[in-house]
Amino acid sequence: MDGLRHSLAHLLAASVRELYPGSQNAIGPAIENGFYQDFDMSKQISDSDLPKIEAKMRELLPKWTKWTKKVVTLQEVKKEFSWNRYKIELAEEFAQENKTLTFFTCGGLVDLCKGGHDLPPATMDPRSFKLDRIAGAYWRGNEKNKMLTRIYGLAFETKEKLEAYVKQREEAEKRDHKKLGKELDLFVIDEKVGKGLPLWTPKGTAIKFELENFTRELERKYGYQHVETPYLGAEELYRTSGHLDHFLKNMYAPIDMDGDKFYLRPMACPHHIRMYQRKQWSYKDLPIRYAEIADYNRYEKSGELMGMIRVRKFQLTDGHLFVTPEGLKDEFKLVCNMIIEGMKGLGLTDIVSYRFSKRDPKNKEKYYPDDSLWNHAEGLMKEAVDELGLSYIEAEDEAAFYGPKLDVQAKNVNGKEDTLFTAQMDFLLPEKFDMEYIDRDGKKKRPVMIHRSTIGCLERTFGFLIEHYAGAFPLWLSPVQVKVIPVRTNHNRYAKEIFDLLKENDIRAELDDGDSNLGGKVRDAKNNKIPYWIVVGDKEIEAKKVNLESRDAGQIGQMSKEELLKKLLEEIKSKK
Amino acid sequence: MDGLRHSLAHLLAASVRELYPGSQNAIGPAIENGFYQDFDMSKQISDSDLPKIEAKMRELLPKWTKWTKKVVTLQEVKKEFSWNRYKIELAEEFAQENKTLTFFTCGGLVDLCKGGHDLPPATMDPRSFKLDRIAGAYWRGNEKNKMLTRIYGLAFETKEKLEAYVKQREEAEKRDHKKLGKELDLFVIDEKVGKGLPLWTPKGTAIKFELENFTRELERKYGYQHVETPYLGAEELYRTSGHLDHFLKNMYAPIDMDGDKFYLRPMACPHHIRMYQRKQWSYKDLPIRYAEIADYNRYEKSGELMGMIRVRKFQLTDGHLFVTPEGLKDEFKLVCNMIIEGMKGLGLTDIVSYRFSKRDPKNKEKYYPDDSLWNHAEGLMKEAVDELGLSYIEAEDEAAFYGPKLDVQAKNVNGKEDTLFTAQMDFLLPEKFDMEYIDRDGKKKRPVMIHRSTIGCLERTFGFLIEHYAGAFPLWLSPVQVKVIPVRTNHNRYAKEIFDLLKENDIRAELDDGDSNLGGKVRDAKNNKIPYWIVVGDKEIEAKKVNLESRDAGQIGQMSKEELLKKLLEEIKSKK
Repeated sequence: MDGLRHSLAHLLAASVRELYPGSQNAIGPAIENGFYQDFDMSKQISDSDLPKIEAKMRELLPKWTKWTKKVVTLQEVKKEFSWNRYKIELAEEFAQENKTLTFFTCGGLVDLCKGGHDLPPATMDPRSFKLDRIAGAYWRGNEKNKMLTRIYGLAFETKEKLEAYVKQREEAEKRDHKKLGKELDLFVIDEKVGKGLPLWTPKGTAIKFELENFTRELERKYGYQHVETPYLGAEELYRTSGHLDHFLKNMYAPIDMDGDKFYLRPMACPHHIRMYQRKQWSYKDLPIRYAEIADYNRYEKSGELMGMIRVRKFQLTDGHLFVTPEGLKDEFKLVCNMIIEGMKGLGLTDIVSYRFSKRDPKNKEKYYPDDSLWNHAEGLMKEAVDELGLSYIEAEDEAAFYGPKLDVQAKNVNGKEDTLFTAQMDFLLPEKFDMEYIDRDGKKKRPVMIHRSTIGCLERTFGFLIEHYAGAFPLWLSPVQVKVIPVRTNHNRYAKEIFDLLKENDIRAELDDGDSNLGGKVRDAKNNKIPYWIVVGDKEIEAKKVNLESRDAGQIGQMSKEELLKKLLEEIKSKK
Repeated sequence: MDGLRHSLAHLLAASVRELYPGSQNAIGPAIENGFYQDFDMSKQISDSDLPKIEAKMRELLPKWTKWTKKVVTLQEVKKEFSWNRYKIELAEEFAQENKTLTFFTCGGLVDLCKGGHDLPPATMDPRSFKLDRIAGAYWRGNEKNKMLTRIYGLAFETKEKLEAYVKQREEAEKRDHKKLGKELDLFVIDEKVGKGLPLWTPKGTAIKFELENFTRELERKYGYQHVETPYLGAEELYRTSGHLDHFLKNMYAPIDMDGDKFYLRPMACPHHIRMYQRKQWSYKDLPIRYAEIADYNRYEKSGELMGMIRVRKFQLTDGHLFVTPEGLKDEFKLVCNMIIEGMKGLGLTDIVSYRFSKRDPKNKEKYYPDDSLWNHAEGLMKEAVDELGLSYIEAEDEAAFYGPKLDVQAKNVNGKEDTLFTAQMDFLLPEKFDMEYIDRDGKKKRPVMIHRSTIGCLERTFGFLIEHYAGAFPLWLSPVQVKVIPVRTNHNRYAKEIFDLLKENDIRAELDDGDSNLGGKVRDAKNNKIPYWIVVGDKEIEAKKVNLESRDAGQIGQMSKEELLKKLLEEIKSKK
């Protein structure tokens, strides 16, 4: 495909030169999904000129039937391209590097080019490519040089593939969580506060609180106890845990506090271990399950930050379980079931896949060195996921340094895959911290640990949810659940009554008693993707009813206040 | 009083020497609330010997009617104290420093002493002092020296004052939040995790969640919007706010992140300001009220840390309001009312006082330099608190660097006063961040800011609540609200039914289906200060009822499950 894309860049050059004589073409490679060509234009153009250029390309296309190649001297280049200072500059440089100079010609256009064209353009479906957009680009990427005009094009094997790509890209752009986050006022990325440190706006926070409640309810159901521990940890803690040996490159520099060194914590496992160690436990007390919406900090390069999906400080719906060795497999299965239940609750089941991450047996020094423990843990985990009937891929060299893990992966709208949820087995940290419980026989035994998240990291899960729902959240997650719209200002009092009733029932309502007209108010509700709006006018006041309309189901009609409350509260409770 | 306390130290020396001949008395000064005397004892003694010594002191007391003073030579000291190496060592040292050596004699006891006795002991009420406890103390505080026996005594002007002090101290010890925190398993101080970084246990976290819900409900009622912002901030943010100029000594060292400097935030005001600045606002939108349970970090020396009350990382029930200048006074009054409502809800009204903290007009350089703004803000705040009818004390030089504040102060059980809640006016930060709103006339105006906390810092408020309630929390705050106790194991099934019913209704219940007997189970409920326990045996199973007993009201008696639920849920809801 690259050969055709590259050829189209030549065709683009020919078309532009015909339409805008005197324009000089510079470079024009194939790229992912298409091609581009840079020009020093004789006349400034804009996106609106693209259809004309595209038409010219289609007009010339049938004549582009054959590529011919000719090895030339620098002199020949200078003669042929006396009108094009960019080609001459390149040719002079190639000559100095003793590279062979070649002309490639097609449809009458001679170009300085090193080749790579395979089929001639005339063989392709003229509807399988299109011009995309115009951008500025410095000659040779250097800002001291002249700014050239870069024309981007898209090209695929077939018209269908082109259309599918364009549609998918439009969809992805519409769903992009950074764009929607701003439009729907869900979060703020503010460099002044700090790169990689997003702020949750009031609307975003309403969703965050729902996610937190959802998490904690699920955790209570599965027998977890909630704890809260600080996002800092003393050096000694991470020395003992091995994080300073194995995880330092993901951690921030330590802070001195009155003579002691503290780290912003990269993980909360040591804190939960110390929580466990505040008491002596018996086998009867196990499993002990601690859960926390825990603050984590990770070293990320500025360039790798991405909206809510890759950040420097996040909150993990974290948890650590301390289990007897005999109880490990069953408890691990319970953990998986809980994660699956959480995923279903959020409506994410369709976009995930499972990844069973193991140690690289050929690269053991990155991992805790104990072959038999690794084999035991990996064997046990495989049994558990097989017994659950999960279909997964196995990935070597992706385990945590302390043990194997099962990751639930999801692709974002741009196709990039990230880990959403995780469950990990750990025999190492209990050893390092010398953890124990008293077994049935009165002897001290070592518990095993499971690390897991319930619905992953709140920031990332939020980002995925925005994209998954394209901002049109289900009722229970919507930051504004109902908007109350009086038709005219003389209906404001009744509207306020309805609004107050909703508020009293903990429904997140908004009252739009401003000056704009009904159409404007409804449009605003739609733009903000509010699930329901209620219009009240003379008819409703007279009937003592409300008129309900839905984002997803359209006009629902008049109903009493009691019916309204019942309908909304049931739908919120169902989390559908 | 110090003179009498010092005299009693002499009397103690005389008594010990009479009861334990050959014992050498070393030093014996007056201290806060009493005195001590160090001895090299001829026989080891313990606290159980104190009554005998105390009786001897009272026996000798009537003869201690007059102090006589005599200036002596080192020779005379050596002769008189040939039996006491400590006195000789001191006398030799004093002589070398050319100090006058003096003997003070009373009731026949000659002692090397520099004086300070005022009234002779015989004049005092013999019931106004008592011996307190025995401790070890190295001679001259140097661990290379011999360990001496230190006997502590308490002494006051009157018997009543002594009794009051003893009672208050017992009460304080019983209520000490560090002691109760451990006994009731509410939080953990773990040096391995880090000094000043307490962990909230499952029970403590249950209380924390209640406090969070309480805070957020109150904030919703007063029209706040909840936001969530990170506990880190870029250097530029705190440069702009002035924290780096005025607050640096309370902040931790910055952390480098890929070339940028970040601070653990000491306050969240800049974050909320940037949240405000994400949009343009009209006067119609104001006041805007942001609330957050915000993470704060403060530099505290290790020696100043104290349980949950003085920590290095805490969560403030924080909030910032952006107000038109015309609306400032009324909004400030609303803020005060809200704080008072919160305080009442927590039952803390009786232990607080108000402190109106102003700039020091003689020491202005610590504060934002604008006399007219300070006068305006202080005047407005005084009007507001006067109109509310609060009685307060005025404190100069205790304002924030950006404006005056009203602090709600509370004393802990040891009499130490701390700030629990606060409300502050601020004209400075809106200026520094160039904040604005569009006023009625279409022009840009500067909003004023109010900084305030709802129920203060969760850690500190928790500490105060533990001490205030001596760990016997009201039902809504209790980590375990009801304990279900089957009389014998054959009642476990019915007990489990009751337990499940309570759980389903979100009541924090515990099922004690272990092997211990009824008495032990009830004792455990009492020791853990659980507000209610339910005993179920044959009678209850037959009658399909439960038998309820209360920590505070004793036996309540049999009732149906429905009655039980109704009673408990109503009491929880009432927050009484």
